[in-house]
Amino acid sequence: MGRWEPNARERLVWAALQLFAEQGYDATAVAQIAERAGLTKTTFFRHFPDKREVLFAGQDIHAQLLADGIAAAPDDATPLEAVAAALDAVTASFRPIQREFGPRLLAVIADTSELRERAAFKHAGLVAAMAEGLRERGVPELTAGLAAEIGVRAFDDAFARWVDPATEQTFPELARQALDELRAAAATLT
Amino acid sequence: MGRWEPNARERLVWAALQLFAEQGYDATAVAQIAERAGLTKTTFFRHFPDKREVLFAGQDIHAQLLADGIAAAPDDATPLEAVAAALDAVTASFRPIQREFGPRLLAVIADTSELRERAAFKHAGLVAAMAEGLRERGVPELTAGLAAEIGVRAFDDAFARWVDPATEQTFPELARQALDELRAAAATLT
Repeated sequence: MGRWEPNARERLVWAALQLFAEQGYDATAVAQIAERAGLTKTTFFRHFPDKREVLFAGQDIHAQLLADGIAAAPDDATPLEAVAAALDAVTASFRPIQREFGPRLLAVIADTSELRERAAFKHAGLVAAMAEGLRERGVPELTAGLAAEIGVRAFDDAFARWVDPATEQTFPELARQALDELRAAAATLT
Repeated sequence: MGRWEPNARERLVWAALQLFAEQGYDATAVAQIAERAGLTKTTFFRHFPDKREVLFAGQDIHAQLLADGIAAAPDDATPLEAVAAALDAVTASFRPIQREFGPRLLAVIADTSELRERAAFKHAGLVAAMAEGLRERGVPELTAGLAAEIGVRAFDDAFARWVDPATEQTFPELARQALDELRAAAATLT
């Protein structure tokens, strides 16, 4: 390992978001991201395998927090109560800098097919992590899958609201609210 | 355009599935797929942009059939009734060769991270197509998204059952059955 670079990860994420927005994702090279961040390519590759993963580095941590939140829910919690506990756990881990990066992150993903594809894979990975946690609690497979899907939709909806500078609620509050809205929508289906 | 090659698409899909299973996805080149199919690289690129898309070429057609099925459902159909009509339309379009290719297709996707990612993107694309059709019928956004998600899950579950050689039901029958099971699972959540 080289010398410690303060906030290297955040600097690289921010540099990548700026460059993707300014000149497009395809036209941006890792060397440019490192240069914009005032770091070397070597430092970049210590943190991320490639330019795409810069924007999805939180996936493993989020999946783990969701799975842990499901496992830690009370024994008598319903599937959606366990999902709510998982959303509390993951949303409480978010820091102000992630809110600050949010609008540009969402815009860059929306504009770039390769990133939308990667986002769909992250979505599926988070759903799978929660669904597995629910199955381990004895929730039947189809129910576990749908509850987990509703949970990740609530997470995505709440993230989009939270990163809006006009929003005053906390991310956990927004996630609970989004989950309630999705539960109500699901009830109209059946 | 070159001369007509009978069943070129099917031959290329089958050659790709064989090679991906035999030697792995990463180790397989387009030239090998074309050679195995007894065709040229030029013919390959007339049908597919790259080796990955060989396995997902049906996505646009499926999305269109789902959207058309939603649009053609009776005015008084509930969201899940419209989804059932869409599943009827798309599953009726499948031919015996797609059933024959199914087990190997599912195995290769399950074994290959890049293909699982592409499959997640296809899933999201089909959900988006159905959700848009439902919104155009006046279904509220969250309800439309969940109904569409349930529909694509039913499609995926039914496909996995249909391609099992031991299965005797038709693909449309299996899709209706999977949709009923998912509806019942959703009812236990709310």
